[in-house]
Amino acid sequence: MNLYDIITKKKRSEALTKEEIDFVVSGYTNGEVADYQMSALLMAICINGMNEEETFNLTISMRDSGDILDLSEIDGIKVDKHSTGGVGDKISLILSPMLAALGVKVAKMSGRGLGHTGGTIDKLESIKGFTTTLSRDEFLYNVNNIGMAIAGQSANLAPADKKIYALRDVTATVDCIPLIASSIMSKKLASGADAIVLDVKCGNGAFMKTEEEAKRLAQAMVSIGRMAGKKISAVITDMNEPLGSHIGNGLEVAEVIETLKGNGNRDILEVTYALGSEMLIFAKKANTKEEARNMLENTIADGSAYEKFTEFVKAQKGDISYITSPEKLVNASVIKELKAKACGYISELDTENIGRAVQILGGGRSKKDDIIDMSVGLIINKKTGSYVKSEDTIFTLYGNDKIKVAEAIKKLEKSVKITAQKPCETSLIKEVI
Amino acid sequence: MNLYDIITKKKRSEALTKEEIDFVVSGYTNGEVADYQMSALLMAICINGMNEEETFNLTISMRDSGDILDLSEIDGIKVDKHSTGGVGDKISLILSPMLAALGVKVAKMSGRGLGHTGGTIDKLESIKGFTTTLSRDEFLYNVNNIGMAIAGQSANLAPADKKIYALRDVTATVDCIPLIASSIMSKKLASGADAIVLDVKCGNGAFMKTEEEAKRLAQAMVSIGRMAGKKISAVITDMNEPLGSHIGNGLEVAEVIETLKGNGNRDILEVTYALGSEMLIFAKKANTKEEARNMLENTIADGSAYEKFTEFVKAQKGDISYITSPEKLVNASVIKELKAKACGYISELDTENIGRAVQILGGGRSKKDDIIDMSVGLIINKKTGSYVKSEDTIFTLYGNDKIKVAEAIKKLEKSVKITAQKPCETSLIKEVI
Repeated sequence: MNLYDIITKKKRSEALTKEEIDFVVSGYTNGEVADYQMSALLMAICINGMNEEETFNLTISMRDSGDILDLSEIDGIKVDKHSTGGVGDKISLILSPMLAALGVKVAKMSGRGLGHTGGTIDKLESIKGFTTTLSRDEFLYNVNNIGMAIAGQSANLAPADKKIYALRDVTATVDCIPLIASSIMSKKLASGADAIVLDVKCGNGAFMKTEEEAKRLAQAMVSIGRMAGKKISAVITDMNEPLGSHIGNGLEVAEVIETLKGNGNRDILEVTYALGSEMLIFAKKANTKEEARNMLENTIADGSAYEKFTEFVKAQKGDISYITSPEKLVNASVIKELKAKACGYISELDTENIGRAVQILGGGRSKKDDIIDMSVGLIINKKTGSYVKSEDTIFTLYGNDKIKVAEAIKKLEKSVKITAQKPCETSLIKEVI
Repeated sequence: MNLYDIITKKKRSEALTKEEIDFVVSGYTNGEVADYQMSALLMAICINGMNEEETFNLTISMRDSGDILDLSEIDGIKVDKHSTGGVGDKISLILSPMLAALGVKVAKMSGRGLGHTGGTIDKLESIKGFTTTLSRDEFLYNVNNIGMAIAGQSANLAPADKKIYALRDVTATVDCIPLIASSIMSKKLASGADAIVLDVKCGNGAFMKTEEEAKRLAQAMVSIGRMAGKKISAVITDMNEPLGSHIGNGLEVAEVIETLKGNGNRDILEVTYALGSEMLIFAKKANTKEEARNMLENTIADGSAYEKFTEFVKAQKGDISYITSPEKLVNASVIKELKAKACGYISELDTENIGRAVQILGGGRSKKDDIIDMSVGLIINKKTGSYVKSEDTIFTLYGNDKIKVAEAIKKLEKSVKITAQKPCETSLIKEVI
């Protein structure tokens, strides 16, 4: 077997065998396959595609390139959730304590944010003292005793994917369904859960811009999961505007607290319930979606989700005063409002640009080692469909640098469309696969 | 302008602008563009193609990456010839003295052999003392005074092509018409001739296996040449058996001498006349193909081509006794015959394999710095269409190592097909474009 012949096969649009895929992945991971050969193959895959079996084999090969977490010391069915990334997406922080309150064990490995999307780990670190670095024993202890733990990825999960992703990032081979699906699923399968619920976002703030694309990605991931013997489903959700009203690390945690207290935005709750229902059914805690939804709603009504969140923050050494007084999370020095210049309905928000505006304020990373300012971000005072009069506030910006705030405002000015006619309401939950 | 966007464009099958192509070629030549980015782009080009204008722009960009020879010190129209490579192809060595005898100036830069095909420079070095390293002044002096000179490529012609070719060679991006056409033409255009005649070979011993492919390559190259303001034509010739009977460096020079003395194989002469006629017309020495062919035939009949060849060898310091006693060129120590095992017609010769057999004997290179044994090779005693009786000799092998000879015989045994029915005769000259 040699790489030249494998590249040639894919160039001619032929399917690769499991042995060929293993040869490529292990060769690339250990340095025997050169970057320039791998990038030629990745481009051929991008253009000519991969069938279901190839995509599955690639996923398994990348999963097996590193550690596979053993969660058998945790009792019960372990259900994991993954979001393909959006703006203002704080669902994991709301859903995890709800599920833990209902007796589902949440053992979550999370990532950091990159580009215009945020990351769960970063958000948690806006709580003073909070640590996402847990030993294996601490992690398992917290899950078994509190019901939940969220940690940064410390184990060596799917190193092949990490290396391949870095190459795709500089060779324009990122937007390719089989490569995206196998990249996400290799890490998910290595994370050891029994069941997986995917939140596949589509719209102008997501990586998948159209519902059609999101559906194809969801189908590819669900197919991989099933072939690997996991319970899995995917919920396709709208990302044509940010989720909720708060964007930025500390601001989002503040919104999480408000939501758990019963003051949540409708869109956040809709997505949380849709994903949570799937997870509760997989965990055998509910039989129907209606039953599951009622159970989830109850965790807010009876305060058990909020209580669980507090317990979780305490267990991971976070300062509880940030939860009881969430205004501590919103302590930026420059606060500025962007007002409507005309009256009418907010008909469109450029979600990716709003994410970029928060990045400009210092709330997101351009490069992996950028340092994040936890206190910056923005609040959307008027979401899509709202009527605004001239001089009504649309956005409130929180920054620590006047120049950056001015730059972010410029970006935001181009991110809102106001029209005379009220835009059609679209459904947040597009489909469950 | 950045490379990521350029790769993305080609991945989406969009055409690249001249500026984008220049950016890629100069960036790759000076090391700013990484191998892994270039190989991703090359794969996208292989699969999605390039239009005429892109192919032309790529050629010009590679041509301009190095020196462009100035042949203005040579009087008259300079006509160059290029072969896409075959087995037993010694046409340049026969045609150059014929043309020089007719007053056409032949200023030829030639290459070395690689893989199963030979190179003109290697063949000439089988003549003791012969040098292909000429200073610019010596080269021009010989062309102006004798009428011809053949030298190895010493100038820095199209270094971008050299670097890109080396990358294509290890990333399975060789067989792509726009890339092959621009690679050949960038060097040809840098070589400074006014007119170019291409010998595009097709068949089982050529890089282009089918006539259709050869035609597409020929059209691409002719289009580039015309857009660059050159007189150019392409002759598509058959390479389903080796040209002539002798293969191997010294052996081929011996066949060149026999051909110039009037004892040439019909196939060699046919191809020589077809290419030579095009060149004579471009050089304004003949008006019609018939006239040109008569002139070329005459140079053999009157001995002027043989005389010119001797003069040329002398001028480049070759030992003339090798020309007067060509048996000196055939001095291998192990001579072995391969005999027919059945009677019938030779219906097929696997030309590439025959080339590989010579390579095994030591007459060709696998890697660029392999050293060639000038004395080894083989003679084809029975060409396609010949009738053989059992025990008739089909090949005579010339080697210096019994083990290699045995290995070559094994390869040759698999390279001949004998059938009861006489195969159809096919035309050697397929088309002139």
